Amino acid sequence: MTLSDQPPAAALVFQTLLAHGPLTRAETGRRTGLSPGAVTKVATPLLADGWIAELAEPAPKRATGRPATLIAVRGERARFIGVKVTADELIGVVADLTARPLVTRRAVLDSRDVGTVVLAIARLVEELRAAVPTGPDGSGGGGGQDGSVQDGGIHSIGVTISGDVDGQTGVVQYSPFLNWHRVALAQLVETATSTPTVIENDVRALTVTEQWFGAGAGLSSFALITVGAGIGCGLSIGGRVVSGAHGVSGEVGHLPVGGTERTCTCGNTGCVEAVASTHAITEQARAATGDPGLTMTQAVRLAHSGDPEVRAVFTRAGHALGLAIASVANLIGPERIIISGEGVATYDLFADQVRETFAARAFGAAAECDLLLRPLPFEEWARGGAAVAAQHLFAPPK
Amino acid sequence: MTLSDQPPAAALVFQTLLAHGPLTRAETGRRTGLSPGAVTKVATPLLADGWIAELAEPAPKRATGRPATLIAVRGERARFIGVKVTADELIGVVADLTARPLVTRRAVLDSRDVGTVVLAIARLVEELRAAVPTGPDGSGGGGGQDGSVQDGGIHSIGVTISGDVDGQTGVVQYSPFLNWHRVALAQLVETATSTPTVIENDVRALTVTEQWFGAGAGLSSFALITVGAGIGCGLSIGGRVVSGAHGVSGEVGHLPVGGTERTCTCGNTGCVEAVASTHAITEQARAATGDPGLTMTQAVRLAHSGDPEVRAVFTRAGHALGLAIASVANLIGPERIIISGEGVATYDLFADQVRETFAARAFGAAAECDLLLRPLPFEEWARGGAAVAAQHLFAPPK
Ligand SMILES: [Zn+2]
Ligand SMILES: [Zn+2]
Repeated sequence: MTLSDQPPAAALVFQTLLAHGPLTRAETGRRTGLSPGAVTKVATPLLADGWIAELAEPAPKRATGRPATLIAVRGERARFIGVKVTADELIGVVADLTARPLVTRRAVLDSRDVGTVVLAIARLVEELRAAVPTGPDGSGGGGGQDGSVQDGGIHSIGVTISGDVDGQTGVVQYSPFLNWHRVALAQLVETATSTPTVIENDVRALTVTEQWFGAGAGLSSFALITVGAGIGCGLSIGGRVVSGAHGVSGEVGHLPVGGTERTCTCGNTGCVEAVASTHAITEQARAATGDPGLTMTQAVRLAHSGDPEVRAVFTRAGHALGLAIASVANLIGPERIIISGEGVATYDLFADQVRETFAARAFGAAAECDLLLRPLPFEEWARGGAAVAAQHLFAPPK
Repeated sequence: MTLSDQPPAAALVFQTLLAHGPLTRAETGRRTGLSPGAVTKVATPLLADGWIAELAEPAPKRATGRPATLIAVRGERARFIGVKVTADELIGVVADLTARPLVTRRAVLDSRDVGTVVLAIARLVEELRAAVPTGPDGSGGGGGQDGSVQDGGIHSIGVTISGDVDGQTGVVQYSPFLNWHRVALAQLVETATSTPTVIENDVRALTVTEQWFGAGAGLSSFALITVGAGIGCGLSIGGRVVSGAHGVSGEVGHLPVGGTERTCTCGNTGCVEAVASTHAITEQARAATGDPGLTMTQAVRLAHSGDPEVRAVFTRAGHALGLAIASVANLIGPERIIISGEGVATYDLFADQVRETFAARAFGAAAECDLLLRPLPFEEWARGGAAVAAQHLFAPPK
């Protein structure tokens, strides 16, 4: 049995159990809109093949009737490797089917050349494979009844990268940080590792893990805005991460909110990124202090010590971010906006301005949107790759 | 039988037939992801109660096997009244279940007072009811087997209005044009007409008809941007119109794109609406010509005759619209963006600038989004109300 042959209802049941944890068949039916008979029908082959299991512990007995058995995803049924590619390093993780991380490794990137990066990914994958515990305790044997996938084996790899990434064709259309154009990354990594590989935009992948297991679980809709070297945005609406008809979505970094003084990497003026990215903040702080060698760390220190010119740089960045966040709230109306990325480490320097600008620009009830600050380490981004690989169990690309 | 008691699969089958027209059971299954058995199971009560019918004409015989019978929605099974409320008039329509308009009427609004508007809606509803043809040809008798809804009877009313409208509770939270705050409009109209009533934001309602029957049919996602007294936006993603967790979505009119010179009705500066709404264009043309009595019609004439100052006003509006359209494309990545509203009558005056700005700001493959200019008369907006009422057959509010 392969999961991609299963009917859509099976994917629905499986993903509901992934996101919500153990449920009774009745509750699974209620949450998916399927009849109890339909739940039992699609659950039977999943149980037989070890993708889900009945829990030994039954649910608390109700007032009437016998105790209901819980069904749950068997995390150990399959493992996935997630790799996040940044401009200067790789972060890799082995995770189980529930995206629980088992092993994490990093590798420095000496060059952004496609061949070098693919080779480095292949080496990191080997290292992760060797480091992951196998055997009866750490799994690794038995389980699969058709031999195609064994418990604990590495099922597939998910590589995530910032930019215009087409998950369906496996091609990185454009990645500004790596300066890549039309790179068939999925195929290259698949060839180098002899393991099925999917790729995805890094922020969308992180949005998948937030939707399944993080601060987006159970919400009708949410947005994830990441602040750092770039300003990214993932959108989840009605339980699905929005991928864009042409592979582009969530490009909040180029919303035209910042005046006309600064030119963005995309060639336009006034983009959020041109004012609020780490690089943009550093550049503006250098201009403000007249010190061309000033680092971001030094700029943060100056702002914390009360330097009015440098503080103004952060306030301007906070204003641009507040406008971007309000724009997302006004356009999409999400239940919650999660703010993350490495920029949250210095978020105290623009938090007030973000909230003030958001309050002024949110239209009507859009102001009720919950803003949640959430630091997510780079390991979480790698985990996003593993979650995307797991997601393709039911819907393989192409 | 009421449709809201039917399983979710019934709504899926029904809405697929509504959007696609007559289909074989096999094709219906393919499009909904349901098994042929499941399609037959949910179709049976819909057939028995006259909501769908088997067509006399069978589908063309395939190479092997007998001809497949087509199933289709019976438009005459139910009728709906749609009413669009503008600042100075009502537009009403009687439409059948497939949102086919049967009768249209207009009524002038003397005042924007809630009581006056509700009374005018009730009078218009009476007039529409009287004008609609009944009897064997125009329907109106027989059909319903449980007597709850008869063929041709008015099933319900859908009222649409611009602003922050909560369709679930039936309350207009805020409508700037009418200066209404927290008006329980659905209940008021229901009481005045003795007919079940739902309400919806006007642009979202128009998006529903475009999704089912218009330029959005069959697309994975699209946006509808309306240009006129306000700048609105409806979003359809994965076959669902986005309504916003707090009732607000598609508020593209307040994206901060237009500099700081002009103050918007929302109190901020630089909103799209503050530069590109009909009112904003008129005001700017008055300032440019120094003629405080200049009308929009005169401004259009001056621009067409080549007046550089007035042309510049339209160019500025086109730039703001282009930024807004690019922002929607970058954030959501729709397959198509439909541009409509009364402003399209003068669209030739800013079309070039819209396309130029869109091309410069669309990020990567987002530029492939199809921009479609589509004039939709006000009757179409009223039809949106009827479509929203029809939509609630399966999911009544509250
Ligand atoms: Zn940019
Ligand atoms: Zn505004």
